[in-house]
Amino acid sequence: MHKAAGFLVAISAIACAQDLMPVPAALTRGSGTLAIDAGFRIALEGYREPRLGAAAARTVARLSRQTGILIRGTDAAARLVVECKGASAPVQTVREDESYTLNITPQQARLQAATPLGVLRGFETFLQLVAPAPGGFAVPVLRIDDKPRFPWRGLMLDSARHFQPLPMIERNLDAMAAVKLNVFHWHLSDNQGFRVESKVFPDLQAKGSDGLYYTQDQIRAIIAYARERGIRVVPEFDMPGHTTAWFVGYPELASAPGPYTIERGWGVFDPAMDPTRETTYEFLDRFIAEMAVLFPDEYLHIGGDEVNGKAWESSPRIQEFMRAHGMKKPEELQALFIKRVVALVIQHGKKPVGWDEVLDPTLPKDVVVHSWRGRKSLAEAARKGYQGLLSFGYYLDLMQSTAYHYANDPLGAEAAKLGEAEKARILGGEACEWSEMATAEIIEARIWPRLAAIAERLWSPQEVKDEASMYRRMEIESRRLEWLGLEHRIASARMFDRIAAYEPHDAEALEALATAVEPLKQYDRHDVRKYDLYTPLNRMVDAAPADSVTARSFARSVHAFLAGDRTKEEEIRKLAAAWNQQHATLKNAFTGSFLAAELEPVSRNVSRLGAIVLGAIGILNSGKPAPEHWVAQQKRIIEQSKKPQAELLIVILDPVTKIVEAAAAQK
Amino acid sequence: MHKAAGFLVAISAIACAQDLMPVPAALTRGSGTLAIDAGFRIALEGYREPRLGAAAARTVARLSRQTGILIRGTDAAARLVVECKGASAPVQTVREDESYTLNITPQQARLQAATPLGVLRGFETFLQLVAPAPGGFAVPVLRIDDKPRFPWRGLMLDSARHFQPLPMIERNLDAMAAVKLNVFHWHLSDNQGFRVESKVFPDLQAKGSDGLYYTQDQIRAIIAYARERGIRVVPEFDMPGHTTAWFVGYPELASAPGPYTIERGWGVFDPAMDPTRETTYEFLDRFIAEMAVLFPDEYLHIGGDEVNGKAWESSPRIQEFMRAHGMKKPEELQALFIKRVVALVIQHGKKPVGWDEVLDPTLPKDVVVHSWRGRKSLAEAARKGYQGLLSFGYYLDLMQSTAYHYANDPLGAEAAKLGEAEKARILGGEACEWSEMATAEIIEARIWPRLAAIAERLWSPQEVKDEASMYRRMEIESRRLEWLGLEHRIASARMFDRIAAYEPHDAEALEALATAVEPLKQYDRHDVRKYDLYTPLNRMVDAAPADSVTARSFARSVHAFLAGDRTKEEEIRKLAAAWNQQHATLKNAFTGSFLAAELEPVSRNVSRLGAIVLGAIGILNSGKPAPEHWVAQQKRIIEQSKKPQAELLIVILDPVTKIVEAAAAQK
Repeated sequence: MHKAAGFLVAISAIACAQDLMPVPAALTRGSGTLAIDAGFRIALEGYREPRLGAAAARTVARLSRQTGILIRGTDAAARLVVECKGASAPVQTVREDESYTLNITPQQARLQAATPLGVLRGFETFLQLVAPAPGGFAVPVLRIDDKPRFPWRGLMLDSARHFQPLPMIERNLDAMAAVKLNVFHWHLSDNQGFRVESKVFPDLQAKGSDGLYYTQDQIRAIIAYARERGIRVVPEFDMPGHTTAWFVGYPELASAPGPYTIERGWGVFDPAMDPTRETTYEFLDRFIAEMAVLFPDEYLHIGGDEVNGKAWESSPRIQEFMRAHGMKKPEELQALFIKRVVALVIQHGKKPVGWDEVLDPTLPKDVVVHSWRGRKSLAEAARKGYQGLLSFGYYLDLMQSTAYHYANDPLGAEAAKLGEAEKARILGGEACEWSEMATAEIIEARIWPRLAAIAERLWSPQEVKDEASMYRRMEIESRRLEWLGLEHRIASARMFDRIAAYEPHDAEALEALATAVEPLKQYDRHDVRKYDLYTPLNRMVDAAPADSVTARSFARSVHAFLAGDRTKEEEIRKLAAAWNQQHATLKNAFTGSFLAAELEPVSRNVSRLGAIVLGAIGILNSGKPAPEHWVAQQKRIIEQSKKPQAELLIVILDPVTKIVEAAAAQK
Repeated sequence: MHKAAGFLVAISAIACAQDLMPVPAALTRGSGTLAIDAGFRIALEGYREPRLGAAAARTVARLSRQTGILIRGTDAAARLVVECKGASAPVQTVREDESYTLNITPQQARLQAATPLGVLRGFETFLQLVAPAPGGFAVPVLRIDDKPRFPWRGLMLDSARHFQPLPMIERNLDAMAAVKLNVFHWHLSDNQGFRVESKVFPDLQAKGSDGLYYTQDQIRAIIAYARERGIRVVPEFDMPGHTTAWFVGYPELASAPGPYTIERGWGVFDPAMDPTRETTYEFLDRFIAEMAVLFPDEYLHIGGDEVNGKAWESSPRIQEFMRAHGMKKPEELQALFIKRVVALVIQHGKKPVGWDEVLDPTLPKDVVVHSWRGRKSLAEAARKGYQGLLSFGYYLDLMQSTAYHYANDPLGAEAAKLGEAEKARILGGEACEWSEMATAEIIEARIWPRLAAIAERLWSPQEVKDEASMYRRMEIESRRLEWLGLEHRIASARMFDRIAAYEPHDAEALEALATAVEPLKQYDRHDVRKYDLYTPLNRMVDAAPADSVTARSFARSVHAFLAGDRTKEEEIRKLAAAWNQQHATLKNAFTGSFLAAELEPVSRNVSRLGAIVLGAIGILNSGKPAPEHWVAQQKRIIEQSKKPQAELLIVILDPVTKIVEAAAAQK
């Protein structure tokens, strides 16, 4: 029956088929829709396993939640027939088949896949297709043949610097699955905390975590939760640097005698493991043996980044060792350490992954090189025969635009010049969310929705790269993620409420201000003040999104307006008026609340910029040239607004400048 | 030390001391503030029990969440010292001491209470006082001497008609505690479902619940959760009517032989227990014995409402019994049944509560009469020596205004004429949330924030009744409840997103429309269409708040504007413009989405009303009288807008009419 529907090139009445994120590999639109109502039912055919039944039940529950319809599913005829050919690996592997075909006719949808992984991906596509239509909820008639471009599509989450509670991790796994990511890289130890229960070395968590760690039962539950969603869990134990928290309980691992306390600051710190003592490797042998069982994934990440060498340079014993072994630089000692640890990891049946500092020609080819410092190392590793992962350009904590991340292709730049065999070594990439500046309250809004765009980069065909389409679909996906319980939008809203708590309450005015600003980018906030674990992250700079959708839309509208599209005038005026007016509305908050007070100068500038836009439009409409002194004055204000304040950048300066210049240029 | 601060009548810089909800019995303002920062610590003095430690830890965690500050609490000096005199009862009783004193100086806060219940109430007050001040978060210097006006302050939640999941119940218990409510009345059985696991009669839940019931372990966990927050759990098993779900597993209890299926409709149904057979009471004896142990509270609610008598009238056997006992009306048979069940409840060590139909002069004085059909029965019961509870006027599911509920005093109307001893019999009241029209998705937004105002009516002194103050503080409390995780605001926002799902997405326009409308009141929705369990509750009428804060504020502003306050013009214009403009913005949604389509005529009217307001202001500002034909035309539009559409009322008609009349009256 599902083969009967004639697929047409006609444009369907439903807009949603273009709203998938990630975009599927191939999609053919038909005409008509399949209704989704209380009688919706999923039938499983072919290979069965409990995971498929659970996924089908979850799909129905989510559909019910999305639509508000109590789905009984008691009719005879299933609306979605799932046909799975066979099992996937007992422990999900890196190149498993995730492909699926989704064929929707007006009578029925059929989802076919080689393995349960494909079924899981297909369910997510199906859920994204459901939308209200004129006659009720429906999915469009279409055929999708889909598969991922890269086999490794991940999120690295730092649970070490700020501990992240389990419910938040579960919510993120749900959201990752929704955009077809398949690797949860869990950064579990660092100077600021050791977050895993070790039964072999219990002082790791007892002394290195402030009580904030995951028990082995909890970790097993997360791994099971991830597997149910087709996500691998790759643990990272960063060494030999980033290890202060280990040394609190086991100072004998360190290069200097200690004692050590848990690090409360952020940055690169001196302590490092002692690569010269056999006892270090004996410890790590037993530790890796324990973790290799706890984490079933075939990969284990050993970190290996940011060793500054100072601990080694200041130890006479280690200096003596280096001399005895003809080593001149700390990098050589690091290479020795990595080689030994890599051997231990392989010995315990795992494949090692390391940050790009580990790259050393003497390492076995099993090592996966994880590029974070730049893109060159990825291509270089591939040329040398190593598999590689890209994270450079995917650091969500650096507050860059989604467009920037979206343009960052694992096979772009240097990697574009690689041969086919070399390119095949590039497994994919991982977005990274380091948590110096992200408490549990903030972190979901820092990860989402931008991660959805990175997920598309890693799943969809390379040609899928239209920025405007991505932004439009990302907004839709951001709303869809709310139905999964993700708190990325509500968390920001609550933070605005906190900042605007002073009466009369005006979170709306504060939000208007927020649309004109973004947090400082890269590591610039650390230049402004000294942050540490105890610095409250409750300010506007913490609540404001990294990528202002409104500012971006404003820039687009101004561009179109100046190119002659007068229909944009109303939107531009409305935004400019809101920016102009928020300042007066917020004045009680500025004097009453310390959280709002620092925003006063930012708000004043934004207000002036709003006035400039309104003034410039008036001049443009008058048909007369702008007075020279007016232009000069506005340019001064624009110039003044460039200086970051309260760690915020005003991000509407480009379009404001353009509109002033247009007014000035008018004859 | 806490006694040292001189309390002044001076006005503090912090607005928040007036923002408490419920308003405390007595409050004296001082000058200055006590800072809340990372060093905040609570010290417990005097009587200790685990509940106090848990409450202190929860208070610190909530403070941390509210402020965004990681509270270490490792300083030597506590900022909040708690002094508890002694234990409360092992099972919380109805007249326990809940009073507390909170004394805040610039150095320290001291919370004193006779029992842990007072400490719990005081913690909530303290948390409400925390606000951002110019120098950081702070609480104001003050002294509060507080205690409740009524000992029984509850929420009745109907988990029978739509099953309500446990996390939602926990969130509601948190929120109830936040506004100092102390009774969770749990409506656990009805025609549409039997929601408690019985081990004695397992077919009650096995056949009467669709698998949606609470296990005894879950119920014990909820009771413990409630006790930790100073809340009693009073179960209700409604009988002899409202019992169809019992009969699915045990038809022998019914007046007619059956078989029975779970009721899917809403309304009053015929089936009722058979009061004439001894086996009915033998069953109930064993059932009540089991429930009396499961629910430790000293009260047990037996319902007793809405028996239409038809099951009894149509049974020859029961008619014969009535004749044999000289009974003429079903009410007499009902009285016999209630008397027998009341005796069973008492025999099992509990005090019975029943809806006001149970009132019968032959009942023992232990019975608490729960007034729902009107206020007279409350006074009547008190006069006859019964204790009473008021729920008439507190039905949250009927969509009435908060002002209406707030004005509804248990000692008002007929009860105001009672003598002191009679008044003392009125224990308090309960808000009721019946769930015919409330799924788990909606129910929190139906209960909150209006319940906070009812909580104030039951806790605060009778003189506290300023409506404007209540609305202002309720909005603040509504935002505070978000920090507890309550989903009343996010749920509405998600529902708007669903309705406005059609692209281009404009939830903002839909929200503008929503501010001008309210759902039909009372039981009027049931006159429009036949609702049952399967009717999706996903429309605007389900998403729109019962009490539009914006419409209320608009009415106030128009009133002030027409009385000469020209500063209101801008707000009025802004709202009118938003109402006027939303219609054009939503036109794609009207044609694209069935959820939006029904709103088209409502939106068109709202848009016209917005235009009328803008026109009327123009006329008023012109100083010239409105043309007669203009006035007539606007009045026609207003008249047309009175007709409910899509089960929505347009609630801005009064102020719009007034402004048109003012324009018309202008000479």
